[in-house]
Amino acid sequence: MASVSIDEAMRRAIELAGRGLGSTSPNPVVGCVLLDAAGDVVGEGFHAYAGGPHAEIVALAQAGERARGGTAVVTLEPCNHTGRTGPCAQALVQAGVARVVIAVSDPNPVAAGGMETLRAAGVEVRTGVREAEAATGNIAWLTAVRRDRPYVIWKYAATLDGRSAAADGTSMWITSEAARIDVHALRGTVDAIMVGVGTVLADDPRLTARNLRDGSLAIRQPLRVVVDSAGRTPADARVRDGAARTWIATGAEVGTGPDGRVDLTRLLALLYQRGVRSVLLEGGPALAGAFLAAGLVDKVVGYVAPKLLGAGAPALADAGVRTITEIIDLTFTELTQVGPDLRFTAVPRQREG
Amino acid sequence: MASVSIDEAMRRAIELAGRGLGSTSPNPVVGCVLLDAAGDVVGEGFHAYAGGPHAEIVALAQAGERARGGTAVVTLEPCNHTGRTGPCAQALVQAGVARVVIAVSDPNPVAAGGMETLRAAGVEVRTGVREAEAATGNIAWLTAVRRDRPYVIWKYAATLDGRSAAADGTSMWITSEAARIDVHALRGTVDAIMVGVGTVLADDPRLTARNLRDGSLAIRQPLRVVVDSAGRTPADARVRDGAARTWIATGAEVGTGPDGRVDLTRLLALLYQRGVRSVLLEGGPALAGAFLAAGLVDKVVGYVAPKLLGAGAPALADAGVRTITEIIDLTFTELTQVGPDLRFTAVPRQREG
Ligand SMILES: NC(=O)c1ccc[n+]([C@@H]2O[C@H](COP(=O)([O-])OP(=O)(O)OC[C@H]3O[C@@H](n4cnc5c(N)ncnc54)[C@H](OP(=O)(O)O)[C@@H]3O)[C@@H](O)[C@H]2O)c1
Ligand SMILES: NC(=O)c1ccc[n+]([C@@H]2O[C@H](COP(=O)([O-])OP(=O)(O)OC[C@H]3O[C@@H](n4cnc5c(N)ncnc54)[C@H](OP(=O)(O)O)[C@@H]3O)[C@@H](O)[C@H]2O)c1
Repeated sequence: MASVSIDEAMRRAIELAGRGLGSTSPNPVVGCVLLDAAGDVVGEGFHAYAGGPHAEIVALAQAGERARGGTAVVTLEPCNHTGRTGPCAQALVQAGVARVVIAVSDPNPVAAGGMETLRAAGVEVRTGVREAEAATGNIAWLTAVRRDRPYVIWKYAATLDGRSAAADGTSMWITSEAARIDVHALRGTVDAIMVGVGTVLADDPRLTARNLRDGSLAIRQPLRVVVDSAGRTPADARVRDGAARTWIATGAEVGTGPDGRVDLTRLLALLYQRGVRSVLLEGGPALAGAFLAAGLVDKVVGYVAPKLLGAGAPALADAGVRTITEIIDLTFTELTQVGPDLRFTAVPRQREG
Repeated sequence: MASVSIDEAMRRAIELAGRGLGSTSPNPVVGCVLLDAAGDVVGEGFHAYAGGPHAEIVALAQAGERARGGTAVVTLEPCNHTGRTGPCAQALVQAGVARVVIAVSDPNPVAAGGMETLRAAGVEVRTGVREAEAATGNIAWLTAVRRDRPYVIWKYAATLDGRSAAADGTSMWITSEAARIDVHALRGTVDAIMVGVGTVLADDPRLTARNLRDGSLAIRQPLRVVVDSAGRTPADARVRDGAARTWIATGAEVGTGPDGRVDLTRLLALLYQRGVRSVLLEGGPALAGAFLAAGLVDKVVGYVAPKLLGAGAPALADAGVRTITEIIDLTFTELTQVGPDLRFTAVPRQREG
């Protein structure tokens, strides 16, 4: 194989890591590229699913003896603990790797310490290569580990004037098929999909990741979560079918806030305990407003159709903003067209101080 | 000067034409590049203001004797009639130009005929070079002449959830200074700025094109139009100051529709008679809804701030859409960031059949 630069190898490792998105929780996504002493690629790997081999182990197995004296380029600090798989730092040392290049160090106190193990064994360690890019690829997991709660993405679809249904309640379809296919791909990258019971009662959605063309289900399905204080989800609701696991999160089970509704902070803590690191909040307007008001949204993904209604239900209800100085401030991180529609992503703006 | 291709010369002529935007009505914008027999640029011109010399005349004056045997590259068919200036087709013949290359032919029956005059005098004529691009640059004038009413651009500013004020009515400022500066530049390209009396009563806007940094007025100001069925615009409203001309368009003067409000089709016809070829409709929600319902909007320019309100006045009120099949369908023509905000442009989608 051709000789590549460390920078190129890291770019490739980040790309590999991304392939695990949606199936590694509670673990992070990790990619690894192994170079031999001459700088040629002799192994590649990524962490594909929780319980499966780590990226470094996959790459080492591929490289065999050629790893000796070479360089391991890895997106996250190699783990140091024996969980479901042995510690990767140890495996790298045993394979005789001379140098390890890391993008992001591990914020997880249980797994961290890999760098020290490597250095103690005489391995040269370099960190921070393409760090921002690798961190972006692992943003859900990194944020979750730092906050002890899942990373929350609020996704919505609306017209230019922010509406999600016409005056008479009809709404199929505002966004294009291309946008809806994109949503199903997005569902495939998260651990859980969440809606309020209002959406279940109004639309009876399936909340599965599907191929929209033939209706076939993706192999891995996120956990479906219905936030339902009083347990009003009908017995025959589609979310209760066998297509995926479902949690009807009631006030009795989760606990309630002063308004008598499901306590959202507690809800996220329980999901974290279950291994959920990322949640796709798919509405409706009331639940999204409550999440935003509580500061529990980490990213917004909006699908905006180039259409106007002038009347009908808004995509977002009360978010606790009474006056202009309380407005919820975001920063666009991406603007792109998906079919005829606009897809934007935005993240909350850091408040000063 | 360097020799250029016809294609390059037309691109330059289109660029020159654009400089006249906002000051040529009721005339179109026109640009002209003159090449001598060897293909060198010997003259350039654009139509800068109604009553001023046409683009071809400016370029011919610059070129003098060097135009003889050369090529005139012009964005619109040279005029054939003696209006405020002499016919350009005749002037090109007299200057001894051998060839005329045209982007768009003139849809105006009074001015058209330039091509025949040129051909009759033995001048070679070619049309359709960069036609779409030149037509886009002249879209307001071309649309206006074809429809006998001004080209209407609806401009609005809103949050991601389509709101233009918080629950308590406060709204300053939702969009950034960069977006507001952009709006003032847009105002500089139109013949009239229009609002409903509701906006005057609520916000008392100036509706002038200004330098937002120092408050200085642009040299040319669009006509200010307040759509005000019963003449409720206060005597001391800012739109009545001396900064620009103003028309309070009342039901008595314009005529009213079945709802007793100003008849919008008639309003546009009267503006066209006054020489207005482009109108920037700046709201509010009710007037914009009425224009959209009547199919009188040719382009939408939206400034969308990456912010959420969850409550407050929507940017668009009733637009005559009751159910999803009646939704107003547009196509995005541009998506760009202006400072932190998103600016989109969209045009109504052609209905089938
Ligand atoms: N534009 C979009 O992308 C989109 C997405 C989804 C849905 N929708 C539309 O939204 C409509 C449903 O609106 P909705 O607002 O009623 O739906 P929702 O937000 O899905 O559900 C709201 C319900 O969630 C429950 N809930 C539990 N804990 C809560 C808490 N802490 N805060 C707030 N709510 C909590 C409440 O019912 P309990 O008190 O009984 O628990 C509340 O009434 C449907 O018409 C649907 O089509 C639009
Ligand atoms: N987001 C934005 O970009 C934006 C822009 C401008 C304003 N605004 C906000 O909009 C609010 C004002 O809302 P608004 O809807 O009352 O203002 P508007 O649309 O400017 O004015 C509506 C008024 O226009 C008059 N009108 C005359 N002929 C009409 C016709 N054929 N159809 C409809 N209306 C006609 C009507 O009053 P008569 O019947 O008395 O004639 C009507 O009440 C303000 O709070 C302002 O801040 C927002």
